[in-house]
Amino acid sequence: MKTMKILTAGTALTLLPSFALAQDAEFAALADTQFIFTTLLFLIGGFLVFWMAAGFAMLEAGLVRSKNVTTQLTKNIALFSFAAIMYWLVGYNLMYPGDGNWIAEGVFGTFSPKDIKSDIDAGGYSNASDFFFQLMFCATTASIVSGTLAERVKLWPFLIFTIVLTGFIYPIEASWQWGGGWLSAMGFSDFAGSTLVHAAGGFAALAGALILGPRIGKFKDGRVIPMPGSNLALATLGTFILWLGWFGFNGGSQLAMGTLEDADAVAQIFANTNMAAAAGAVAALILTQVIYKKVDLTMVLNGALAGLVSITAEPLAPSLFDSLWIGAVGGVIVVFAVPMLDRLKIDDVVGAIPVHLIAGFWGTIAVAFNTQTEISEGVARTMGGQIWVQFVGFAAIGIFVFVVSIVVWMILKATMGIRVSEEDEINGLDTSELGMEAYPEFSKG
Amino acid sequence: MKTMKILTAGTALTLLPSFALAQDAEFAALADTQFIFTTLLFLIGGFLVFWMAAGFAMLEAGLVRSKNVTTQLTKNIALFSFAAIMYWLVGYNLMYPGDGNWIAEGVFGTFSPKDIKSDIDAGGYSNASDFFFQLMFCATTASIVSGTLAERVKLWPFLIFTIVLTGFIYPIEASWQWGGGWLSAMGFSDFAGSTLVHAAGGFAALAGALILGPRIGKFKDGRVIPMPGSNLALATLGTFILWLGWFGFNGGSQLAMGTLEDADAVAQIFANTNMAAAAGAVAALILTQVIYKKVDLTMVLNGALAGLVSITAEPLAPSLFDSLWIGAVGGVIVVFAVPMLDRLKIDDVVGAIPVHLIAGFWGTIAVAFNTQTEISEGVARTMGGQIWVQFVGFAAIGIFVFVVSIVVWMILKATMGIRVSEEDEINGLDTSELGMEAYPEFSKG
Amino acid sequence: MKTMKILTAGTALTLLPSFALAQDAEFAALADTQFIFTTLLFLIGGFLVFWMAAGFAMLEAGLVRSKNVTTQLTKNIALFSFAAIMYWLVGYNLMYPGDGNWIAEGVFGTFSPKDIKSDIDAGGYSNASDFFFQLMFCATTASIVSGTLAERVKLWPFLIFTIVLTGFIYPIEASWQWGGGWLSAMGFSDFAGSTLVHAAGGFAALAGALILGPRIGKFKDGRVIPMPGSNLALATLGTFILWLGWFGFNGGSQLAMGTLEDADAVAQIFANTNMAAAAGAVAALILTQVIYKKVDLTMVLNGALAGLVSITAEPLAPSLFDSLWIGAVGGVIVVFAVPMLDRLKIDDVVGAIPVHLIAGFWGTIAVAFNTQTEISEGVARTMGGQIWVQFVGFAAIGIFVFVVSIVVWMILKATMGIRVSEEDEINGLDTSELGMEAYPEFSKG
Repeated sequence: MKTMKILTAGTALTLLPSFALAQDAEFAALADTQFIFTTLLFLIGGFLVFWMAAGFAMLEAGLVRSKNVTTQLTKNIALFSFAAIMYWLVGYNLMYPGDGNWIAEGVFGTFSPKDIKSDIDAGGYSNASDFFFQLMFCATTASIVSGTLAERVKLWPFLIFTIVLTGFIYPIEASWQWGGGWLSAMGFSDFAGSTLVHAAGGFAALAGALILGPRIGKFKDGRVIPMPGSNLALATLGTFILWLGWFGFNGGSQLAMGTLEDADAVAQIFANTNMAAAAGAVAALILTQVIYKKVDLTMVLNGALAGLVSITAEPLAPSLFDSLWIGAVGGVIVVFAVPMLDRLKIDDVVGAIPVHLIAGFWGTIAVAFNTQTEISEGVARTMGGQIWVQFVGFAAIGIFVFVVSIVVWMILKATMGIRVSEEDEINGLDTSELGMEAYPEFSKG
Repeated sequence: MKTMKILTAGTALTLLPSFALAQDAEFAALADTQFIFTTLLFLIGGFLVFWMAAGFAMLEAGLVRSKNVTTQLTKNIALFSFAAIMYWLVGYNLMYPGDGNWIAEGVFGTFSPKDIKSDIDAGGYSNASDFFFQLMFCATTASIVSGTLAERVKLWPFLIFTIVLTGFIYPIEASWQWGGGWLSAMGFSDFAGSTLVHAAGGFAALAGALILGPRIGKFKDGRVIPMPGSNLALATLGTFILWLGWFGFNGGSQLAMGTLEDADAVAQIFANTNMAAAAGAVAALILTQVIYKKVDLTMVLNGALAGLVSITAEPLAPSLFDSLWIGAVGGVIVVFAVPMLDRLKIDDVVGAIPVHLIAGFWGTIAVAFNTQTEISEGVARTMGGQIWVQFVGFAAIGIFVFVVSIVVWMILKATMGIRVSEEDEINGLDTSELGMEAYPEFSKG
Repeated sequence: MKTMKILTAGTALTLLPSFALAQDAEFAALADTQFIFTTLLFLIGGFLVFWMAAGFAMLEAGLVRSKNVTTQLTKNIALFSFAAIMYWLVGYNLMYPGDGNWIAEGVFGTFSPKDIKSDIDAGGYSNASDFFFQLMFCATTASIVSGTLAERVKLWPFLIFTIVLTGFIYPIEASWQWGGGWLSAMGFSDFAGSTLVHAAGGFAALAGALILGPRIGKFKDGRVIPMPGSNLALATLGTFILWLGWFGFNGGSQLAMGTLEDADAVAQIFANTNMAAAAGAVAALILTQVIYKKVDLTMVLNGALAGLVSITAEPLAPSLFDSLWIGAVGGVIVVFAVPMLDRLKIDDVVGAIPVHLIAGFWGTIAVAFNTQTEISEGVARTMGGQIWVQFVGFAAIGIFVFVVSIVVWMILKATMGIRVSEEDEINGLDTSELGMEAYPEFSKG
């Protein structure tokens, strides 16, 4: 319903019952105010992370060749849509089994974020806003995969993998930490998901890249043949979108906005996140100038993204200066990891593995360097001890996601095939898979 | 003014008077807190719906041929700008006559959202935030029209139609429901505007398409000639923008964020809106695969949008599962309605009529299936009875908008002409209407 | 950390200490609520202004020729990143010396927005949110420069200028007003930065344009050779992004959201900002139709931006009608100033000088016409007197920024050179500076 000026009085009337419940109708109840602030944080954070789906779509569409752009766009909007359905149908209940009633309510889709009573009592936030926010993280994990496998993977096997990833793989590994599972109990620390989201997506992508193999002509006679992206304006736009969305990704992960301390924490996270991204971009800019004598824009874009991934495991504890060097190391990683993957003949079209997996590893380990970090259980732990826990957590999730992904990709390969034919790959997936060019009027040079 | 650290103390001093007014200076007044939360909802919702104007611009620029892109961009930014002026000059006062002083203050432009006193007493929200939010809905209605009529309508007649639509047609029909008019009294239900905004825009577009006729060469010897869009990356970006903006469109239409129940409602709306969009996209994806053996990206994009339109009439009452099937039906509608319009030789360049009018009809009717929906007047009504009311509301607005639009388009046709010459249409409107190409350097294939 | 349903009770427990501090645990403390609201305003405003960096990138990438697009994109993401680092390293402490401890803490980077105690006492907001918000204004100033100097300036000298601008020039002049300096004491009024940000960026750009000279072939035999932008869809997208971001730019500059009056002020600013943009666009649309007989899209885009710049000096005091004419004058200015600069043989690739400097001047002067404006010190002043103060403030900042910029550009020219070679300019900077084309597959017409 819309505002009706003439009904404003009526609106005020409907507020009266809640007035009556309070001892003094003049003041706002603390629990209500906190509930609204935190719900607002989830909603704003959630729509910003949603926006990252558009960022991945633009980044990837810009970095593939024009003959594969429509397919890449289709994969991105489709993977988000499947993720939205699968996370509701299975994932959310699988990820948060702790409330003890997920079996009773059923794993498959009886979750409904309509019953707010439980959380109101706990003084929290709207269940629906939490679902909305968490869903976006699940979808992000899937977005990471599509870039690596671009230009050769068939549409439907990719989407089936997405369904398995967002319905099962991500929720299971994420529940180990965010669902109150064994990693959380062990003292593993991953504030907004350097490992749980980014490295996990990177491992799923790596598994796919290994099974799928490189694009035709990418590695030839021991040389790496550059296959430049078709539209760097789109790629830059995508990076800016991701950067913007990351404020929601990290800031929203504070999970509370109802106290002065929480609001300040969210603000610090915004400032640190921005600093890490800027430092990653600058590091890649300077390093490519020094090494290659020319700045490489795609490295700068990936440097910013690697800076963001690096700060994601702990965006609150670091100072701005800490954020700067943590992000800068992320940018440096990208510049060295991209050619390293090439030497390993792993074909990662957009550089998602360096950005999300390798910088994700760095970010996860870097948590231990921030001595200001309080371990959630209050356990005192040396830096070395924390590094070890961080490493175990990263390895556990990495191995789990990688192995399951390998199995799923192999089953898909054995049953329906995952790679387009050589002819289709050369002609471009847009023709063979979709019959629809992205830029039909512009003649190719 | 900016923050001046040295003046912070001064700022605190200026707060003292409001402190003094409260019985106890320590606590936040409930009415003030609710006022701020709801105002914030309108502002966030409003800027998200503003962003939809960019979404329509990108979607349409991507779906027209490159020779008409500049014109399409010009129409989109111009229609928003005219809508912003006309809704202030006439529309807002025309749409909300209920405060009884619109004649005294004058229809034409004396409205100023500066006097906040009236709403403060009612415990509501800033008038200016309401104006800002409502304006965006008016502009959205106009955005829908430009896509259908692309590639052949003259710039200025189109803009004059926009002026009439945003200053008069939309405010009048919207006042029937949101201004407390007869549809509202009858129990018609249209939460965020499946009928009032989307179908209304669709009917105005349909009227224009009928008077204007199809593009040259579109229907030839009983066949439909495909005229593929020039830039599917832009079209996909536009869809993502619209999807993002829709959280504000539907969520903001809760019109209140000051209570725990309202905050939870906004969160449920966000989750449902996202689900319906995802379901619409997936439905179109699967259906085009099944029917045409190849996925059609433009259908997937329009499927997502149709899912969004479908949930817009009632985004709060449905469960997530309800939202899924309501959105999915929207996606199915698009896949069948687009070729149906072709068979009727109605040339709708971007598919706005299927998405906004036909899915808008479905969304409006679907309200009746949600038995959870409480009819605002508290009148008990059978599902059949509600369906009938929904149908009457849809038909009334449809007939009004369609007939008035037909008349306006015919007057424009008779006086200044609405269609470019055959030669100009073949050469592209960018040359004839604007003398400025969108992509001057890229040779056309 | 993520939500863990099973830990919700624990979260509630951690709130208990703050419960205990309040006299009555049921109600929200006013100071806390105001702190959270204002912090939220800074964060939302800040991410919206961040988004303007993407807007400038798209606008400029769309308005340069395709052979310079990668360079333009690189400059935009790099300048933002350097600004983020320099404003932290030097600028923020330089701009707000008023807290008396900036020397003790050091100019160079010891600022950390972690200590929230000082502002909590003053009842304000999170320091980190203020830093995040203010940083975006500094970066915006630099974004303005890149457009004017496009297609001929070398990458690294440009970035070095950016470092000086964002670390020193901007913070110094901005401190005169927003840091509580002499302009502020004099009664100069510049709400969100028509002069401090936009005109300052414009003066820095003008200095660069004069030292750098026009592009080869721009002015030939007394004629102005049009060099149309390569992608008007991107330019339009950029304009919409800037328009969206401006709600944060102007709205956030209210610097407070914790009272009913502040919330209403923010809402009025949103409505006025939108109106001025719309009026600027419509004015340029009509004027180019009248003068040139054809609408000029780039003028419409710049008209909207000029409308936004015009209202930025005082977006709160004007009525909607005032905002309309203030913005419309901005649009008119652009239409006349662009050819005027051409006659002066000043080559401003994207029209940034008319939009930001000249409309910024208009906006600054227009403050005096709003008799509703209260002068902050409570000094009664005639309109003529205020115009004089506005003029002095504009001139002081203009001269300072212009002279220092000239010196910096001349030093850069004398040492490393600021302009690419003639051959490189003709071949495009993407080849010579970066070795990477933005659209490598599309053949140039």
